Amino acid sequence: MKRYALYVTGKKGIFDPAGKTAQNALDNLGYEGIEELKIGKYIQLTVDDTVTVERVTEMCEKLLANPIIEDFRIEEVG
Amino acid sequence: MKRYALYVTGKKGIFDPAGKTAQNALDNLGYEGIEELKIGKYIQLTVDDTVTVERVTEMCEKLLANPIIEDFRIEEVG
Repeated sequence: MKRYALYVTGKKGIFDPAGKTAQNALDNLGYEGIEELKIGKYIQLTVDDTVTVERVTEMCEKLLANPIIEDFRIEEVG
Repeated sequence: MKRYALYVTGKKGIFDPAGKTAQNALDNLGYEGIEELKIGKYIQLTVDDTVTVERVTEMCEKLLANPIIEDFRIEEVG
């Protein structure tokens, strides 16, 4: 059994409405000093030992991320 | 300027429809060996130096996570 952590984030310059909304809401609640807030996806993937990191990369490219507007990073966590 | 990475994940036992849908879609695409796939949020927060980790914790509790159904973890990344 292997575990991967996948981080999917909006590419630079792509509008992030969820992040912007959360940032505005924090401003309205009185939280000062926030310069930027971006919301992406954190995917925890558990696979059997036959699944390689190349295969996981393919899953990200084909389904878990949208390569047009998102970047992704893969970490094997054990 | 400080940067925090926040990881918001569904609590154990809470149904994760997005994760389940992605897992089914990968099955249908022929990706075998997936045991579990959970989708959470990965929040990149940039703040000025006056914002403490306690303050960030409060932001998570009040707005960025739903403590009833979600856990969160905070990492200072520089």
